[in-house]
Amino acid sequence: MTPAGRPINLAQKLASFSDRWSPRAVAAFNGHDVMVVKVEGEFVWHSHADADDFFFVLKGELDVELRDRVERARAGEIFVVPRGVEHRTAARQGEVEMLLIEPTGTPNTGDAATAAQRKEI
Amino acid sequence: MTPAGRPINLAQKLASFSDRWSPRAVAAFNGHDVMVVKVEGEFVWHSHADADDFFFVLKGELDVELRDRVERARAGEIFVVPRGVEHRTAARQGEVEMLLIEPTGTPNTGDAATAAQRKEI
Repeated sequence: MTPAGRPINLAQKLASFSDRWSPRAVAAFNGHDVMVVKVEGEFVWHSHADADDFFFVLKGELDVELRDRVERARAGEIFVVPRGVEHRTAARQGEVEMLLIEPTGTPNTGDAATAAQRKEI
Repeated sequence: MTPAGRPINLAQKLASFSDRWSPRAVAAFNGHDVMVVKVEGEFVWHSHADADDFFFVLKGELDVELRDRVERARAGEIFVVPRGVEHRTAARQGEVEMLLIEPTGTPNTGDAATAAQRKEI
């Protein structure tokens, strides 16, 4: 991970890997991980009891499926899923690149047993 | 402020005001404000004893002056100033637009007496 106090180029970080649904931590602040991720297709329904999810779409169009509706977040848009709210993200129009911010250690599936292992780049 | 669970278009938010050094909160998550700000020229030297500062440069080039060096963050780059580290931001190549994330209530100058009043859009 780039040391704190240095600029972090997100395009460079994103160019360094190609697998989907596997967030990479690129910075940390105030107990949170700042991560980049590539996604395509759909994720699993889940919620986080104690953490609001922050997404910033950098490329593509992300569907955020909630139990009562579907929202679409496009490049240049941010989205906050409040804690406890069930959601499923899906990229149905090609690959999506995102910045994610979550408390360090938050399992991406809402369940430590199925979560992606934490990775840094 | 756009309710949680809806996409937030940062370009639209930024188009709604023109004053500099006056952050607008556009979302909140995990005790933090997500803010957009326009800056040009230089700010004041300050630090935050209890909060790391998160910047994401959306447009332009931002100098982050530290006591021992100057870093430059460009559009598409993020920057974290660790808590307690004195810094001064400066936009010397024209206007800079940024996303800022800080614990809600953090004074932007490091001092409540001189801080910009909290605003939401």
